[in-house]
Order: sequence, then C-alpha cells, then structure tokens
Amino acid sequence: MAFTYRRTIRFADTDAAGVVFFPNYLAICHEAYEESLAADGIELRSFFGGQDLVMPISKSQVEYLRPLTCGDKAGITLTTASLGPDSFSISYEVHRFGPPKKLAARVCTEHVCISPRTRERHALPAALAAWVAHHAA
Amino acid sequence: MAFTYRRTIRFADTDAAGVVFFPNYLAICHEAYEESLAADGIELRSFFGGQDLVMPISKSQVEYLRPLTCGDKAGITLTTASLGPDSFSISYEVHRFGPPKKLAARVCTEHVCISPRTRERHALPAALAAWVAHHAA
Amino acid sequence: MAFTYRRTIRFADTDAAGVVFFPNYLAICHEAYEESLAADGIELRSFFGGQDLVMPISKSQVEYLRPLTCGDKAGITLTTASLGPDSFSISYEVHRFGPPKKLAARVCTEHVCISPRTRERHALPAALAAWVAHHAA
Amino acid sequence: MAFTYRRTIRFADTDAAGVVFFPNYLAICHEAYEESLAADGIELRSFFGGQDLVMPISKSQVEYLRPLTCGDKAGITLTTASLGPDSFSISYEVHRFGPPKKLAARVCTEHVCISPRTRERHALPAALAAWVAHHAA
Repeated sequence: MAFTYRRTIRFADTDAAGVVFFPNYLAICHEAYEESLAADGIELRSFFGGQDLVMPISKSQVEYLRPLTCGDKAGITLTTASLGPDSFSISYEVHRFGPPKKLAARVCTEHVCISPRTRERHALPAALAAWVAHHAA
Repeated sequence: MAFTYRRTIRFADTDAAGVVFFPNYLAICHEAYEESLAADGIELRSFFGGQDLVMPISKSQVEYLRPLTCGDKAGITLTTASLGPDSFSISYEVHRFGPPKKLAARVCTEHVCISPRTRERHALPAALAAWVAHHAA
Repeated sequence: MAFTYRRTIRFADTDAAGVVFFPNYLAICHEAYEESLAADGIELRSFFGGQDLVMPISKSQVEYLRPLTCGDKAGITLTTASLGPDSFSISYEVHRFGPPKKLAARVCTEHVCISPRTRERHALPAALAAWVAHHAA
Repeated sequence: MAFTYRRTIRFADTDAAGVVFFPNYLAICHEAYEESLAADGIELRSFFGGQDLVMPISKSQVEYLRPLTCGDKAGITLTTASLGPDSFSISYEVHRFGPPKKLAARVCTEHVCISPRTRERHALPAALAAWVAHHAA
C-alpha cells in the first residue's frame, strides 16, 4: 500500500538556478520514509541511532523530470519491494500539485540491514519487515 | 499576532552528534517565515526571486537551549518588529512539544529591503509592511 | 583525462548515524565538477547563473560502498562521456585516502543542455564541449 | 594567533537568490574551526563523536555584510577568547578575495564543555584549552 507525504518546497531546498538542488530530492524522499516509518509505529530516534542494527543505503537513483521551486506543494508517494531477508528497496514518485498535477522526479533507494559491529548482513528486524510488507507495491 | 509553524525534525537536520546541526535552526526558522508570508497571501516564488526589491538578512542571533533529535515534534513561533520604513526584525521561539513542552532555541533575524540594482535601501513593499504589522509582538 | 578533487569530510556533511548523509555524495561530486570546470577556465557564476543556456541534471546514480566520517580525507576523480551534441555524463569515484586507499562510492550524473526559455534541447556551448572532450574516459 | 582557512564557495552553498544561503555562513565557519583543531593535532572523529565530553554551541551571531556567490574565493580567519574554565568563544571574519579583498561577514559562536551524561558543565580538556590559548585574539 502506497504512502503519501506532503511537503512544501522551501527556500533552503533551492540553489542559485532557482530550483531544488538535485541532491535534495534524496533528502526529501528520506523524509517520506521517516514519516512512513513513524506512521507504522517505528520510533525514529532509536531506529536511526542504531545500536543493534543499522540500515544503510547501498544504492540510489534519481530521474529529474521537472524542476520544483520555493513554495511549490509537493507530494511524495512511496512503495516498497523486498529484495531478500536482509534488504529492500523503496520507489518514490515526487509530484507537484497543480492543477494539473505533474510528475517531478522518480527516485529509488536500496537498503541493507547490517550489524554495526561486524558490518555483516543481518535479517531485517520484525517491525521493519512488517513495514516493507505493508507498503509493498 | 504570533504565527506558529509546526515541523517534525528530520534525519537531514541532524549531525554526527545526533542532534540538529546548529546552522539548521536558522533554516528551520526561515521555513516559519515562508509559511507565514504564504499564509498572508504573499507569493513566495516572486518574493524570493526578487527582480524589483530584495530583503536580505543583515543579522542573525541564536541561543541554543536544548538539543533536538530526529522525530521530535517542534513548534516555531514568530513575532515581528518594525525597525523603520526599510527594515524589520523577526523573533522566533523554537519549542519541542512534550509533554512537557520545552524551549529549545531563541532566534532573531534582521531584514533590510534594498533595490538589487543599486544596493540602496528602499521602503518595504506594502504587502510586506502589512505582514510586519500583522505579526508585531 | 581524469580530474581529481581533494576534499576533507566536514561535520556539516554528516548525519546522526555519524557518517556522510547519503544525498551529500551528490553535492560533494558536484564540487568536483565545479572545480574541474574552473580549472578549464569556465567562469562558474555565469555558467550556473544561466541566462542563455542551462545544463540541468537529468539522472543520478550512486553506489555507496564504505561510510565516510568527519575528518576523512577524500579524493573525487571524475571522467566524462559525450551522449550526443546536447548531453553528457560524468562518472565519479570517491576514495578515502589511507593507507590503504579505499573506494567509498561510485556516482554517475547525466546532464542535458537546454534553453531556459523554451525548455528545448540545444547543442552544448563550445567551452563545455571542449571540457567534456578533455575529460573523456 | 589567528588561523585562516581558504574555501571556494560552492553551488551547494547558494540559494534561489543566487548567493550563499545565510545559515551556511555558520557551517562554513565551523569548517574553519575543524581545520584549525586538526592543524593543532586534535582528532576530529573522536572530538565530535564525544563519548566523554561534548562542546555544544550555546550562542551564535552573524552580521552579513556582502553576498558571496558560486566560485568566489573566501578566507575565514578565526580567533578565540576564553570565557572561563568550561567555555570559550570564536570570532570569525569571512572575506572575499579580490582584488580588492572585501569583508563579507562577521560571525561569533560560544561553546560550552559539558558531560553528555549529566549535561553539567565541565572544564575543557587540556588539548582544547591549549587550542583556545593558541588562537587567542
């Protein structure tokens, strides 16, 4: 089930070309990830503070389709896919609300669960596996 | 009349000390300024794109009282003060919602209206002067 | 011919996991792009201020291999590839200097030249085409 | 003894007004602080990773005098002042190299040493006290 996060584009997101600085699409999509985890009852501080297990991002991909500017109302819709017991991907579509609504970017990230001590792969914690299943495309 | 903007603290706001990176308080307060301008009907893209007049910040001050971490729910309350026909200040209080609600930072910025061509001071545009009056402490 | 840019990892680059925030790899690679353009005599302010032609990024890809932390000495090596008269790609390798030297990330961006007024594709300006040829893999 | 750090202004530093986004002056000055600590032999990862003692910033002040744009060559000169056994301040001047050289901003930060467990003030570690003495105005 897709999850949608709404976000106004801020002056801090922009660069001297007057539009959202291209790395910031990844940061904005990560906000949607955080909001979605929180909505499923996962506590962010301990999740990202990671003493036991950490979930680093191993890959990211962005297609930039239309620029976004300060004040634009954006919607970021995410769906997930399991890549095995210890990894998953998230696909995001970033829209600018209109009318007409326009697709601004497509983003994909891959995440791997590892033990911070050994750096070895480890099965996803149950709450995260449930979150992946909940938002599977 | 004070204006309050609500904002969840994001992973992107934090640094390796696990808390909001200190320059980001200014960026978060600027979001409250943007939201408040938009709420009073000022169009952000042209306001910050500034062909005719620009409103650069001439001073900023922050007192950091309590750290904020990823997932915290914050409220940023702003009030304004006129400093003359061509300048104004904004005072912000950043709270972390609780319970109990705690003051995390006090921020103040000063803004000057200038002509981008001559760099000379110029009276505030009417819509901005009205915004300053509307939110005066 | 490859171009290498050296960069110390800063506290501002990090996040609450204690390592470089993943979107910031794109920003750090863009610095290498800027430094390389400047080294070939291209004036950055007018290049990125873009009245006549703009060079937005249409795609980005990152593989994150090893985390980087505050104080690390990094080297970013770029090479280019022409994708036609109006577009090119840049491949980056981000290393952490050691000893031993370790590959931290592989990054790729695609760039398209367009006219800002019509949003239509346009041949690269001569100085940029020369830069692409100079750094071709 | 003053310490000077040289830094090219990057596209990532700028905002839609075409100049350095005002919170980023604090981040750029923090880079000068990091570089200066490293030059005096303080290891940044453990310093900012802070298990034993942490040095949060309690206040910051910036006067913005002249805008900086992408490609500008800047110099950030810092001097320190002791504020007691457990705190100190840093004064920064940010210049744009010319000719002529121009002052772009004046920045001041105050830092307090605390124990991360008790949040109580604690005397500066010896290496940091020596750094403060070394760069006293």
